Amino acid sequence: MKNIVVLGSTGSIGTNTLDLAERLKNRFSVVGLAAGSNLALLRRQVEKFRPKIVSVKTKEQALALSDSLGDFSGRIAYGPEGAAEVAAWEKTDIVVSAITGIDGLGPTLTAARSGARLALANKESMVAAGALLQALARASGTEIIPIDSEHSGIFQCLAKERRENVRKVTLTASGGPFFQTPLGAIKEKTLEEALSHPRWKMGRKVTVDSATLMNKGLELIEARWLFGLAPGELAILIHPQSIVHSLVEMRDGSTLAQLSVTDMKIPIQYALTYPEREESPLAPLDLGRVRALEFYEVEENRYPLIRLARLALKTEKSLPVALNAANEAAVAAFLDRRIGFSDIAEVVSGVLEKHDLTDVGGLEDILEVNRRTRAQAENFIRQRF
Amino acid sequence: MKNIVVLGSTGSIGTNTLDLAERLKNRFSVVGLAAGSNLALLRRQVEKFRPKIVSVKTKEQALALSDSLGDFSGRIAYGPEGAAEVAAWEKTDIVVSAITGIDGLGPTLTAARSGARLALANKESMVAAGALLQALARASGTEIIPIDSEHSGIFQCLAKERRENVRKVTLTASGGPFFQTPLGAIKEKTLEEALSHPRWKMGRKVTVDSATLMNKGLELIEARWLFGLAPGELAILIHPQSIVHSLVEMRDGSTLAQLSVTDMKIPIQYALTYPEREESPLAPLDLGRVRALEFYEVEENRYPLIRLARLALKTEKSLPVALNAANEAAVAAFLDRRIGFSDIAEVVSGVLEKHDLTDVGGLEDILEVNRRTRAQAENFIRQRF
Repeated sequence: MKNIVVLGSTGSIGTNTLDLAERLKNRFSVVGLAAGSNLALLRRQVEKFRPKIVSVKTKEQALALSDSLGDFSGRIAYGPEGAAEVAAWEKTDIVVSAITGIDGLGPTLTAARSGARLALANKESMVAAGALLQALARASGTEIIPIDSEHSGIFQCLAKERRENVRKVTLTASGGPFFQTPLGAIKEKTLEEALSHPRWKMGRKVTVDSATLMNKGLELIEARWLFGLAPGELAILIHPQSIVHSLVEMRDGSTLAQLSVTDMKIPIQYALTYPEREESPLAPLDLGRVRALEFYEVEENRYPLIRLARLALKTEKSLPVALNAANEAAVAAFLDRRIGFSDIAEVVSGVLEKHDLTDVGGLEDILEVNRRTRAQAENFIRQRF
Repeated sequence: MKNIVVLGSTGSIGTNTLDLAERLKNRFSVVGLAAGSNLALLRRQVEKFRPKIVSVKTKEQALALSDSLGDFSGRIAYGPEGAAEVAAWEKTDIVVSAITGIDGLGPTLTAARSGARLALANKESMVAAGALLQALARASGTEIIPIDSEHSGIFQCLAKERRENVRKVTLTASGGPFFQTPLGAIKEKTLEEALSHPRWKMGRKVTVDSATLMNKGLELIEARWLFGLAPGELAILIHPQSIVHSLVEMRDGSTLAQLSVTDMKIPIQYALTYPEREESPLAPLDLGRVRALEFYEVEENRYPLIRLARLALKTEKSLPVALNAANEAAVAAFLDRRIGFSDIAEVVSGVLEKHDLTDVGGLEDILEVNRRTRAQAENFIRQRF
């Protein structure tokens, strides 16, 4: 029996993880949950799994949860310290890091110090603090297994391959809902249209990042640190069917690829059970029915953020942190209908142009760059729109 | 430096192997060659690689080769004993088994007793004697690495996966030149049309087997024995682009696939260098240019031999041997223009209907079933056409 804690238990990855934990309850016991603001769902999760610790965002939420739970005997914590406490909970075997955005960084770093397996869905941790995260994991013996479908695919294809045999790693992107929209018409696209992702059911922020391809930009940076790849070894292909998640080309011309139906339960389960695999109740991939898997080069004019992501991929220092921060602020403004879809790239680009590169050694440096860049993005948005 | 011998050095796999050995001459030394009747090419190979032993089919050929070579100081052998001598040559690290058809069985069994790596292109060995071959290899410590592109792909996808994690293995087939020919028109197809394979450049026999899909039928049986799979775990998909060679579906719903440009040098090189990989000079796979990978279910009416192959896949005993023998006879008759394309399946089916299942324990049993079945096929052809 393995003990797991879930950071971000009420989000898309979190709820999928708990569904799996329930199905595989002879293998996994949920001992900790940390969540944001969906208190009603969190309460149901606590009642079902009876974890030993649960953490929420604020003290008020902690009190409300405590009142509503009645006979719950576990610990109720709150704030960043609460999330960190869950991440470092004793006798934990697997930490599922699935808090969205840069907020997941602190708890993820805590988990990387713990020696428990880190099942990583929070890509911002690798983007903002890849080197640090890997150093902490190495020192503590923490094993990092990616949950992003693309990175789970790479991980599986790499298997026992020697690093020097790998020539190129390609992540696929669905291309989002505007993949074939005439370029001139993208500017007019609404929030609702941006949120109707053709393949994956995901959170709103990730869905918008998928439409701008920023999601893939962040994943390139994540892949760099997860697998120790050079920027020139990383590529993206548009693959509208989202069935091939990634491809690893070896230096002898052989390419391994990982495919599956588009369901996050597959990579999540793999991260939990690796190196074993458990039966999945999902309908298997039926390529005869899918019929065609298509691949297209990325048009950079359609996805201007990808150029910035490629630049950040090559730059250590603070640029990846700033890229992510400016994008988080811009996407939040788009989700609030304060700016249009095409303005997201304009905001990120405008902010990064003025960014002063600094060294970012630890969590505080990173959070400071993040705060400063978000404030700059907010200013930019206020002045411009 | 590894010593390699090549059984079938003047065929398609053999010449590709020697091209590779020349390019990688700092890693591989060719110490033995066995060939059929292309004496002119064999002579050039001997002059280039200066092996320690070379074997031909007949005593006359051996004398002719000896005369034409002048100062060659190595041994010149002939006949099945000569091929066996090459297969068991001392201090050999890798035996490339690439003689076409059932003739390759004897030397392959000899190689499997040797303890040297067996790089296996002769699929008939696994089809006719899978259990025996595996038992010999286990006893001698011989490592079998497949050269068929589909099986090389499976081997790479399986990597360190545990056997119980594998749910299904799919081999792809190009579908051959008649994949989209109206069913009624296939009967009229000529030898020239059958030999114009859309993707792979291969020998004539294999190219015809590719048009009838018998090639894939034999490969199903080969995969069963190579990887210890159950008949129900093996599937075929038509994939006209021939870029995805095989797919391994795990029980958790994740599928790994191996892809490459269609060049036999890739699986051959892998079989030689495994577990390492060497740089390949081939242009890499460019999926953005290929654009679409298509997959179709197999229409059994179009490829009647596949039903017989599935039957042989389930039957141990002599049925796979008879299937291969009847097919070899029928394809030879087609290549001689004695029967039409659609008659191949009719001959194989007619012969198998009358086949008496027997146990086939060793090489002699197998060769006896092979001889008998070929004779029956010849009779069938003479009586019917």
